[in-house]
Amino acid sequence: MPTTVQARSTESRPPAPRTISGATTAVAKDLGRLVLQCEDRPRIIAAISQFLSDHDANIVESDQATTDPEGGRFFLRMTFRRDDLPVHLEDIERSFAQTMAERFDDAEWRFTEAATPKRVAIMVSKTDHCVLDLLWRARRGEIPIDIGLVISNHPDLAADVRSFGVPFVHIPVDRNDKPAAEEKQLQLLSGNFDLVVMARYMQILSADFLERIGCPVINIHHSFLPAFAGAGPYERAKDRGVKLIGATAHYATEDLDEGPIIEQDVVRVTHALDVAGLTRRGADVERAVLTRAVQWHCEDRVLRYGNSTVVFAR
Amino acid sequence: MPTTVQARSTESRPPAPRTISGATTAVAKDLGRLVLQCEDRPRIIAAISQFLSDHDANIVESDQATTDPEGGRFFLRMTFRRDDLPVHLEDIERSFAQTMAERFDDAEWRFTEAATPKRVAIMVSKTDHCVLDLLWRARRGEIPIDIGLVISNHPDLAADVRSFGVPFVHIPVDRNDKPAAEEKQLQLLSGNFDLVVMARYMQILSADFLERIGCPVINIHHSFLPAFAGAGPYERAKDRGVKLIGATAHYATEDLDEGPIIEQDVVRVTHALDVAGLTRRGADVERAVLTRAVQWHCEDRVLRYGNSTVVFAR
Amino acid sequence: MPTTVQARSTESRPPAPRTISGATTAVAKDLGRLVLQCEDRPRIIAAISQFLSDHDANIVESDQATTDPEGGRFFLRMTFRRDDLPVHLEDIERSFAQTMAERFDDAEWRFTEAATPKRVAIMVSKTDHCVLDLLWRARRGEIPIDIGLVISNHPDLAADVRSFGVPFVHIPVDRNDKPAAEEKQLQLLSGNFDLVVMARYMQILSADFLERIGCPVINIHHSFLPAFAGAGPYERAKDRGVKLIGATAHYATEDLDEGPIIEQDVVRVTHALDVAGLTRRGADVERAVLTRAVQWHCEDRVLRYGNSTVVFAR
Amino acid sequence: MPTTVQARSTESRPPAPRTISGATTAVAKDLGRLVLQCEDRPRIIAAISQFLSDHDANIVESDQATTDPEGGRFFLRMTFRRDDLPVHLEDIERSFAQTMAERFDDAEWRFTEAATPKRVAIMVSKTDHCVLDLLWRARRGEIPIDIGLVISNHPDLAADVRSFGVPFVHIPVDRNDKPAAEEKQLQLLSGNFDLVVMARYMQILSADFLERIGCPVINIHHSFLPAFAGAGPYERAKDRGVKLIGATAHYATEDLDEGPIIEQDVVRVTHALDVAGLTRRGADVERAVLTRAVQWHCEDRVLRYGNSTVVFAR
Repeated sequence: MPTTVQARSTESRPPAPRTISGATTAVAKDLGRLVLQCEDRPRIIAAISQFLSDHDANIVESDQATTDPEGGRFFLRMTFRRDDLPVHLEDIERSFAQTMAERFDDAEWRFTEAATPKRVAIMVSKTDHCVLDLLWRARRGEIPIDIGLVISNHPDLAADVRSFGVPFVHIPVDRNDKPAAEEKQLQLLSGNFDLVVMARYMQILSADFLERIGCPVINIHHSFLPAFAGAGPYERAKDRGVKLIGATAHYATEDLDEGPIIEQDVVRVTHALDVAGLTRRGADVERAVLTRAVQWHCEDRVLRYGNSTVVFAR
Repeated sequence: MPTTVQARSTESRPPAPRTISGATTAVAKDLGRLVLQCEDRPRIIAAISQFLSDHDANIVESDQATTDPEGGRFFLRMTFRRDDLPVHLEDIERSFAQTMAERFDDAEWRFTEAATPKRVAIMVSKTDHCVLDLLWRARRGEIPIDIGLVISNHPDLAADVRSFGVPFVHIPVDRNDKPAAEEKQLQLLSGNFDLVVMARYMQILSADFLERIGCPVINIHHSFLPAFAGAGPYERAKDRGVKLIGATAHYATEDLDEGPIIEQDVVRVTHALDVAGLTRRGADVERAVLTRAVQWHCEDRVLRYGNSTVVFAR
Repeated sequence: MPTTVQARSTESRPPAPRTISGATTAVAKDLGRLVLQCEDRPRIIAAISQFLSDHDANIVESDQATTDPEGGRFFLRMTFRRDDLPVHLEDIERSFAQTMAERFDDAEWRFTEAATPKRVAIMVSKTDHCVLDLLWRARRGEIPIDIGLVISNHPDLAADVRSFGVPFVHIPVDRNDKPAAEEKQLQLLSGNFDLVVMARYMQILSADFLERIGCPVINIHHSFLPAFAGAGPYERAKDRGVKLIGATAHYATEDLDEGPIIEQDVVRVTHALDVAGLTRRGADVERAVLTRAVQWHCEDRVLRYGNSTVVFAR
Repeated sequence: MPTTVQARSTESRPPAPRTISGATTAVAKDLGRLVLQCEDRPRIIAAISQFLSDHDANIVESDQATTDPEGGRFFLRMTFRRDDLPVHLEDIERSFAQTMAERFDDAEWRFTEAATPKRVAIMVSKTDHCVLDLLWRARRGEIPIDIGLVISNHPDLAADVRSFGVPFVHIPVDRNDKPAAEEKQLQLLSGNFDLVVMARYMQILSADFLERIGCPVINIHHSFLPAFAGAGPYERAKDRGVKLIGATAHYATEDLDEGPIIEQDVVRVTHALDVAGLTRRGADVERAVLTRAVQWHCEDRVLRYGNSTVVFAR
């Protein structure tokens, strides 16, 4: 699977995108990120700021949140610049594990390099708007991802996907033997990707699949969850006579449409729209919401805890 | 109950509001409205346009909708000008009943005068934002209503309400004898009002009450229905981690939070807001949504059918 | 130039789009539209409704507006169904010219068939987001247009455009001889199209060109006009520190960025975004605004008068 | 002027507001804020985090921004908890001036106590919507302000304002002797307030007044600046045929409508609204925008630099 759509910026495209808002530098290669969550306690920021300073890393962006400053859960995302980061990152990680792990022994944390795009695979059925928007934005360099594979249970979108230079694999799903299809999907996906995106993939993934996939899975649901979970949300929205329709991007879990929500949005509708009209108008919301969710996830802006998320959006 | 807040416009207030958008005339007294729904069939608009023309009425605004032009349901709202309308309206109605009723024998229809404000009573508990916004807009003349009474199960808002010159009646609700309270409410309300508004009235009205009240009841629910129907919507929104919170104005029916929706809106929230923060931010949406619903209802822009509404909003 | 992108709907695409909201019928071929403006006077709607009824045409959608019911300007758009419309439309037009023209002798009016897509040409420079969104929506059948040609002063987008089966013609613009380029453009455009769309075409069209083109020209400007007319709007938005950025679709006139506005929208921005960030975020607004403007224009929903528009949007 | 509207929360009001989002504690008295801007350079956050830690202050919220990490301007807002803050704040400030001032010798900085509401005076003419919304939110405790005085050049709003227990002073403005009126205003305002809000005060304040007032002045302009600066923005919006109207809250400077923008918003309008309709719909945007600007300013979230602002909004 050598062909990927890489973030790039050419003179014939719009102004060079900066995946780190506010960090307007050409040397993204020296930008690192620390994402951490732990029990809240005094002086976490001071300790970590000192640690980074001791390792010649200068903080350029910092976001934190807490569910409660006294005994709640603490969340942190810091972007820092360190000259020749690729050379030093391993040392920094090792040192953090030794010195900080003792102090914040319950912490979950990771360091990432901003210049390294996430490897992404997309699953889709027949509907093109979400997958095309992701492919197109990846090509423009708006989202820091390499899309390495698109899997579909239908052959319809093969030509569209391949025109972006991205492999398209058709894996039909026999409703009497779904495990066989999932097995084929897992052979292609497991271990090869940092993120799988269900861009209107109209099959339910089994708990077993989600456990074995080994990376987060983001799904787009075509309603404003928790309203209209399950099948046929636009039909049910029409029946109920709602005045706004929406879309929800969330991490897929074994409980259908119940996973942690990353992003949602809505659009106004009226009685004049039938189900087809709601579907068409909703499509614009779906692609916008999914794109933002994938972007924020891939910029390490989304922290999961329980069934919720902290999103340090820009 | 002689004191009411009437639509008015004085030199010290903002530019004179026009309750009929697009009909920028000073002679609102000559503006009438026809609201009608029936089975869809050919040439309804032509027939009614001819009828109005024959009665020297000039159409100045017209909206129509259909669920399906062949065999569906048809909805119409027409605003017309007729010199000396108050003198002629009864004739027009009688003539319509005679000539049109034959042709559209399944139709529900009514004529109203734009210059006649709807008589409105408000029910509220302790929360002030919805009732104050309605009182204030009525005083400014932004909504064509006379607010003649506010009933509350708590005494807290008495001074605020009375400062608008509107009677405030405290009717406590004994949780072991709700029917007694409803009986007192009905004595004040039945037959006296065109509309009752539940402006954050935190008691469930019985089916018996809704049947005997004799006029429509509009309720504001503090969530984006059908999500979070029932109690504690902001708490549940926080638990579910939604990224937008909303409010829904609907006609009250005996099925709690299930009545026809008139208007909805949402506002963006983040993980940084706790339940109190969601509640505060949601309050702004609640008052805006309820105000729009009351305004549109009182301008005869809302047509109910089944459990849905057609809203000819401006 | 035989190859065009036609509105189509296949089983592998989303639910069949209906270009006439609310008119949910399969027989679009029998749907006609009348668009008219004239001096306001009594009984226009009644007269026209009668006319259509007399010609066996059933009104299924009607919108009207007036700048002032007494002596202002009146605007009307009616959608009607007439069996075998293509056979009868010429008769209807002739009859309208004879009978109505007498009565409304100052009127500008036209009849159109809903089933006939507008023939559209697009002009673009290097930026792809607007042209790609139009091509993609035309292919999905969301907008009732046939895109028959894309002209660019740069070769960059040739492959992208041609992948939709649409001809791409590169006409370089020599800054010392713009008239030569316009001459070549006019040879391709004049008489062949119902609408020309400047989808981020970064050259100013001469008054002579606009006069000779013989059809409306819609331009997308990357600011919320009248703010930041002219060059570099995102740079100037950053300098001024605005908290929202926007886009404006308008008819091109010889006065740069001063033509009648069709549609506008904005998106929230913060200090954290540099000019590149504003440009990227603005691109999403630009494509959405331009798409809506083209859709409404091609559904005969936009009526120009003076330097303004009446838009009967859905 | 002893009577003020203080932030308060009683059982009969909505859930207790928290003026510090995310800091959900009852002991606001121990919350402090540091607001700072200086030339950007490495390790500012580490140094300041260490300083606060050394003074037993725990950071609970932190926002920073930079115009450019290498040689740009750096902005910081930190909220911290220190037991018995009122006792210790003076020491902390003195220590900061001694130790940090050396290191960041170009910095502008201040410490504030979150529990201390800002003292606010309001100037208004005849229009009530902005001033009433501020009074009402102050009474609910939604904004951390004490409104101590309302000055108007008209007597109209006296009763409304005084019903909140806030003094109302009528200072007529003779168009031939504005300096006399400003002199009277300055006698009441100078030295007594932290902020003056022009809540639709329809007089231009002189450069001399703005210099002598000795505190920031926030103005609400009824357009989306820089569009329609100056008089009659709704009339001009109607003339230009814009599809959105807006409002802008900005710091007043001697250049009319040119001061640093704090907040803006818009609302959709159509051809169906006349100037009165635009004015009425715009009023809702004006009060919302002004309220947010005042809230953010009073929570020390707005940092001015040049003619721009950094706003750490929640």
